[in-house]
Amino acid sequence: MAIPPGINESDFTAALAEFENAVGKDWVFTRDEDTRLYRDAFSPVQNEPEEILVSAAVAPDNVEEVQAVVRTANRYGVPIYPISTGRNLGYGGSAPNLSGSVVLDLKRMNRVIEVDDKRHFAIVEPGVSYFDLYRYIQDRNLKVLIDCPDPGWGSVVGNSLDHGVGYTWGLYRDHFIAHSGMEVVLPNGEIMRTGMGALPGAESWGDYRYGFGPHVDGLFSQGGFGVVTKMGFHLMPEPEAYLKGIVTVPARQDIVDLTAMVNQLEHQGIIGMPNYNTPLAPHLATPEVSAMLSQPFAQAAQELERWAQGNELGYYSVELQFYGPRETVQSNWRYAQRLIGDIPGATFETLHELEWPIAADEAEGLHKVALGIPNLEIFRLGTRQSADTLGWDGEMWFAPIIPKNGEAVLEAQEVFTEAFREAGMPSFTHPASTPQTWMYRAFVFLMGFPVSKVDVAANQRQREMFTHLANLGAEHGWGEYRTPPIFQDLVMSHYSFNDHVLRRFSETLKDAVDPNGIISAGRGGIWPRHLRDRSA
Amino acid sequence: MAIPPGINESDFTAALAEFENAVGKDWVFTRDEDTRLYRDAFSPVQNEPEEILVSAAVAPDNVEEVQAVVRTANRYGVPIYPISTGRNLGYGGSAPNLSGSVVLDLKRMNRVIEVDDKRHFAIVEPGVSYFDLYRYIQDRNLKVLIDCPDPGWGSVVGNSLDHGVGYTWGLYRDHFIAHSGMEVVLPNGEIMRTGMGALPGAESWGDYRYGFGPHVDGLFSQGGFGVVTKMGFHLMPEPEAYLKGIVTVPARQDIVDLTAMVNQLEHQGIIGMPNYNTPLAPHLATPEVSAMLSQPFAQAAQELERWAQGNELGYYSVELQFYGPRETVQSNWRYAQRLIGDIPGATFETLHELEWPIAADEAEGLHKVALGIPNLEIFRLGTRQSADTLGWDGEMWFAPIIPKNGEAVLEAQEVFTEAFREAGMPSFTHPASTPQTWMYRAFVFLMGFPVSKVDVAANQRQREMFTHLANLGAEHGWGEYRTPPIFQDLVMSHYSFNDHVLRRFSETLKDAVDPNGIISAGRGGIWPRHLRDRSA
Repeated sequence: MAIPPGINESDFTAALAEFENAVGKDWVFTRDEDTRLYRDAFSPVQNEPEEILVSAAVAPDNVEEVQAVVRTANRYGVPIYPISTGRNLGYGGSAPNLSGSVVLDLKRMNRVIEVDDKRHFAIVEPGVSYFDLYRYIQDRNLKVLIDCPDPGWGSVVGNSLDHGVGYTWGLYRDHFIAHSGMEVVLPNGEIMRTGMGALPGAESWGDYRYGFGPHVDGLFSQGGFGVVTKMGFHLMPEPEAYLKGIVTVPARQDIVDLTAMVNQLEHQGIIGMPNYNTPLAPHLATPEVSAMLSQPFAQAAQELERWAQGNELGYYSVELQFYGPRETVQSNWRYAQRLIGDIPGATFETLHELEWPIAADEAEGLHKVALGIPNLEIFRLGTRQSADTLGWDGEMWFAPIIPKNGEAVLEAQEVFTEAFREAGMPSFTHPASTPQTWMYRAFVFLMGFPVSKVDVAANQRQREMFTHLANLGAEHGWGEYRTPPIFQDLVMSHYSFNDHVLRRFSETLKDAVDPNGIISAGRGGIWPRHLRDRSA
Repeated sequence: MAIPPGINESDFTAALAEFENAVGKDWVFTRDEDTRLYRDAFSPVQNEPEEILVSAAVAPDNVEEVQAVVRTANRYGVPIYPISTGRNLGYGGSAPNLSGSVVLDLKRMNRVIEVDDKRHFAIVEPGVSYFDLYRYIQDRNLKVLIDCPDPGWGSVVGNSLDHGVGYTWGLYRDHFIAHSGMEVVLPNGEIMRTGMGALPGAESWGDYRYGFGPHVDGLFSQGGFGVVTKMGFHLMPEPEAYLKGIVTVPARQDIVDLTAMVNQLEHQGIIGMPNYNTPLAPHLATPEVSAMLSQPFAQAAQELERWAQGNELGYYSVELQFYGPRETVQSNWRYAQRLIGDIPGATFETLHELEWPIAADEAEGLHKVALGIPNLEIFRLGTRQSADTLGWDGEMWFAPIIPKNGEAVLEAQEVFTEAFREAGMPSFTHPASTPQTWMYRAFVFLMGFPVSKVDVAANQRQREMFTHLANLGAEHGWGEYRTPPIFQDLVMSHYSFNDHVLRRFSETLKDAVDPNGIISAGRGGIWPRHLRDRSA
């Protein structure tokens, strides 16, 4: 049996016995074959000394059991790491930051407390997955849409707490902004409710997010200040219609005007998530184009653009998604064409039009998450070996935030592509790379670094490059919004303004609220006092 | 000279000398005629022993001066109360919670750091008013709209930190959600930046709100955790067109369907702020109607409805505001009519249509704030004596959050109207009262309680009634979102879940960050340790 750091075997044994008393013997796991399930399945340090393993797992059924477990952990100083469904794959999965932690697995707490389709919110427990919530809504024929990320098996609560994102309209797809109210078990075992939930008898917990006084909710996101056991989320009412159109523009520099115009649409609420891409994608691996791209960046960019224009392929595309009344999605699409039509050579195509209710077969082959239908179709592409991804057993995401304009896109293309060239590595970026736009107000210049279950040397190379790009990005003012545990100290070190005062401030708060440092030690780069020197 | 509590005269004199060193003699105010300007002009305890007065004021010009002032205050234990422009009238104005505090007046820090009309954000200092920001944008012909509250002289930063609200579209009018990033001087004098501002060289401070790790910004809203010296805000791109239509429905019970339908429009982003009202408003003071309303609630409601129907006036109205492309505002208005047309007897009228740029004379007589034009036209109505409001020298706002549905409106009408009747006071509510909808996701059942500069007895009656309604509301699950300082302990006491754990949690955080309790003691009901027993 593994023992958590900073605790002796007899205390740990006593703590485990108390855990069993609290949740029942069946829900405390200490055998290797059980605890191994909490390894990060996409770990980039798999089978290396740095791999983060857990000592045990405890799966409570309700908030009283969570309280009992937390109180015991606090008394004995057992480090615990709450997970919701544990599907934070690519960013750490179900593994903690501190090896030897006990996972507090909340998957059994999977109750949908309430969905209101007149006021448009849901209140759920952490074990509720997007699948669960969707099914609950469908079963009752409630007229609300959920906003889900690619992995439909993920937790609505957990995704939000990780600053996770989705695909639909405006702020619904920023899953933390979309929340309203929390129930949290604090490190001392007390239950706290925030927002209107703090007022006994209030029925507006899912409506108004603040309540009264300082707003503390943010501390529980990407942080270890408590165990969230309920959370409210604003939902979008089911619209009448959906229309997806695609815009193509011919020149590399067009990204500057295109992003400004699309920002204008998006920030007025005219479109949901814009989906930038390049029509060159299918051609990048051909011998002709890949030879072009192996040249220094400026030349590669120039030739690629000439080649794209010669073949009339277009250089960038962006899919625009319209949600709303039947007539409005049409008039908004016409407006978008009028606006973006100012870019010489811009072309427009309507891709598809749907009306709610959307039957399962209508959504087949479409981007289901954009229609509020959870699935695993996109997620699975990067997850397991296929002919295309031999030796690729998962990925870790490099997710730097860049300014939301075309100038930053052009700069990021060049900085990262040159970095790969200089490192002699196949590049994940190129002179037509485009950002991800999940966040309502930010661009993420996302890259998936493959990880292997068997090839330690390959993983080491990927980690080195990841680290190099993270440092290089930070020099350019780009920082990650989210990262796997083994990189969290590095990423937090980039948010260094005034001698890391933001981290030091969070540490001060952490020590006050969790003096024994039991909850999620190291999460978001915040270590409790007794472990702080390891983050230097 | 007044002396702050908990400090001796010689220390205070020494602190004042240091303040003068930091900001210059001209910007430290200790004479009565100066410090009196920081009295709450709308105080309900004016000239009574409970009136909160300040001992001095200090007005720094920049963040370094703020740091110097805060360090001195921290060394000597001088309670300071930062204000932005001090226009929080109706909720305390520029007065602190703790009598004898030194006001830290940030009005000289009135620089607009940046407005980006491609990414649509502004970064401003606390002294920037809505007028200032509007003028900056107009002078440069930037294509962004600001969202302002009624008092255009208010601070963009201060309003947001008070959970203030405006009038336009979706989340822009929730001024705290609309923020992205902060610069804060902490109680120890250090400068901290949050969000992407923590990453040196990042240009995405106004884009992405979270940065990395626990999100601490909420602590600085309605709380005393630091002095905010810069803040970013998302802005709405200037739309093409604006259309305002009005819907009228005939029956009291119609509010249930009407609110559900309007929620559906609003939560899809189809409309900006819906403005509920009653067409009966001009008739309520007539002898006939007011006799009706003096009866017990059920009978009054029944007769009022019959009277409204007999006179074909309609019972409730709601103004719907559409922002967007020219064609879209029309199609959205048609959709709204189709949707709400299901209510028997609903009528629709287009009130006005405008296109941007909107000339000053076009906006005359219209609701300017809804067009992003700051002014004082609405605000001034409640502020000074007129023939209508004799003896009314201002007001304090009673602002309970109720669930966002018609059932809650009907219940609140009855509960509050009966309370006024039982108290033998003229009622601020009646069986056709409607909620305010500034918050994107909540209803506020707002009432303005008149306050007098001279009539102490009248103020006492108003305070008693305010207290009674606050307690009565809390029994029904309704709590205030914001309240004048003298009621903040009371209101926080209603957010009492689990023995006031939310307040105790905030107190723990407060003690850790501000151990000497110097900043905004008592704000939001959170007192520093050495003053805590006074909040019991």
